[in-house]
Amino acid sequence: MTADAFLQRQGEIARAPSGIIAEGRHYYALRVFYEDTDAAGIVYYANYLRFIERARTEMMRLLGYEHSALRDATGINWTVRRCEIDYFKPARLDDALIVDSTIRTLGGASLDIEQVVRKAETVLVAATLKLACMRSDGRPARLPGGLRESLSRVANAPIPPQSTRKSPAH
Amino acid sequence: MTADAFLQRQGEIARAPSGIIAEGRHYYALRVFYEDTDAAGIVYYANYLRFIERARTEMMRLLGYEHSALRDATGINWTVRRCEIDYFKPARLDDALIVDSTIRTLGGASLDIEQVVRKAETVLVAATLKLACMRSDGRPARLPGGLRESLSRVANAPIPPQSTRKSPAH
Amino acid sequence: MTADAFLQRQGEIARAPSGIIAEGRHYYALRVFYEDTDAAGIVYYANYLRFIERARTEMMRLLGYEHSALRDATGINWTVRRCEIDYFKPARLDDALIVDSTIRTLGGASLDIEQVVRKAETVLVAATLKLACMRSDGRPARLPGGLRESLSRVANAPIPPQSTRKSPAH
Amino acid sequence: MTADAFLQRQGEIARAPSGIIAEGRHYYALRVFYEDTDAAGIVYYANYLRFIERARTEMMRLLGYEHSALRDATGINWTVRRCEIDYFKPARLDDALIVDSTIRTLGGASLDIEQVVRKAETVLVAATLKLACMRSDGRPARLPGGLRESLSRVANAPIPPQSTRKSPAH
Repeated sequence: MTADAFLQRQGEIARAPSGIIAEGRHYYALRVFYEDTDAAGIVYYANYLRFIERARTEMMRLLGYEHSALRDATGINWTVRRCEIDYFKPARLDDALIVDSTIRTLGGASLDIEQVVRKAETVLVAATLKLACMRSDGRPARLPGGLRESLSRVANAPIPPQSTRKSPAH
Repeated sequence: MTADAFLQRQGEIARAPSGIIAEGRHYYALRVFYEDTDAAGIVYYANYLRFIERARTEMMRLLGYEHSALRDATGINWTVRRCEIDYFKPARLDDALIVDSTIRTLGGASLDIEQVVRKAETVLVAATLKLACMRSDGRPARLPGGLRESLSRVANAPIPPQSTRKSPAH
Repeated sequence: MTADAFLQRQGEIARAPSGIIAEGRHYYALRVFYEDTDAAGIVYYANYLRFIERARTEMMRLLGYEHSALRDATGINWTVRRCEIDYFKPARLDDALIVDSTIRTLGGASLDIEQVVRKAETVLVAATLKLACMRSDGRPARLPGGLRESLSRVANAPIPPQSTRKSPAH
Repeated sequence: MTADAFLQRQGEIARAPSGIIAEGRHYYALRVFYEDTDAAGIVYYANYLRFIERARTEMMRLLGYEHSALRDATGINWTVRRCEIDYFKPARLDDALIVDSTIRTLGGASLDIEQVVRKAETVLVAATLKLACMRSDGRPARLPGGLRESLSRVANAPIPPQSTRKSPAH
């Protein structure tokens, strides 16, 4: 989306409880509450990780893969392996923020996702995370096939068909 | 609202970023994320206080009294003096909850608010709080006049005109 | 403990990772970090519930009943049924606080505990909670016998022997 | 510290409310409470950022530069510019953890710090952060001179004298 299109659609995003998907990206709106801020008057640095996790959860829900349903059906949980996060400008109490997420690469048992937190057109925080599917015993699990296809809706490039390589658990 | 009316309007509530006001109550929707749960598989008990604070914040925003604007214009912050909270049933990951709030009594510098957290028609948690307006130096402040009138929209009984008693700060 | 004795022992309490038990009360020290504060410059109201839960956890650990060990051995978790909390004065960044806890009444499957958060001799927050033992299926469970006896060390009055009434689960 | 020395000193670290400094590193102990865990039974990923911030705060306190005192005296706050964090193994309820911190590079207005979270000798999480000193107006500030010298106690290599380059704010 161009910056103009994004600003025009901000109200629409805020009214969609799970956000919207457009042009290979997921957009999710949230507000900054007192609980998110600290005595420096700004959002506490760990809380952006809560914000972007909410966005990932709602993206998955929109794709039909709610966390608890996935866990109950397959025993698989998402786990974060790595996170790189840059803090450019602080968010403050009552700010209306948008988290914009897109998948960069999709492996057999993991994916890289880029997530940007914006206030209007200003980027406040940008993060890149490596997520993996994990079984309840802690071992890596392959991404379920249907999920894999659904994820291409929030990827900024075509996602290649899953290779026949074995998953890292084997 | 009757239970039926409430259930029918749940989608509408979820799509209203600041919730809705109906029949003297404010209704606000939220989701349970991983950040809200604990190792017992349920929402951690302190986090319901975050949920109900979000609801109060959005209620005030809907009434035209955003926290940060009120603070910047008048130097007044809301503060919680007392909270009684009953935990009936636990909320779990991915639950869609509604916080339903109504003001019970409105004093010169404080108010009592009742807040109930529901999953569909089931009451999970019920809280009563005493809130006060506070100046930046920590002394109590009278509720601004316009706010006082606005609050009658979310009170379940007519709110009497403000008495001419002096505020507790004097 | 008298106020003087308390102040003299504050350093000792801070150096005891699980706090100390003296004269029927448990004392636990903690610091206020940025994560605990909000944009009003004070500790966010829900976070006192985190503070007092840490104190209860360390009290139980000191008595030999660590949460995870109790759960793994008996399937029992502690659950909060009700909390009444008064906020008298705010805590701020870097404050050194003491949580002082004592059991008021001990039933067959629940107990009432009083917890006070102090900064030096000043009471900031006072809470009373009803806690119950719960099985993993959500039904109430009797307090294990040995735990019952241990708890008398942190009760401010003799705890009567457990009655032969059946637990509320039956 | 060798792994053996570290394990032998774990009790000592736990009894030091602000941790200890040894061989150019700061060691700080903490416990995992229910508040830190999530419904997957492990510590929620954002909460390690809370843990390592507590360690940084106590390290600064030990060096004589408490956050609130620094802010009140100089108007300077610490701010996180960037964080890279790897999650190797999860921590669980009641785990006793040690955060081990050391400064890698020290610039005129910023520093790079490495922080590792361990359970006994096992590394659970490793993070590298860029921190900067910031004035209340959001502009970068030079590290106060005395602080600069003190920080060499927790650096794993000699810290060169501050250059005469102007700070990025000028």
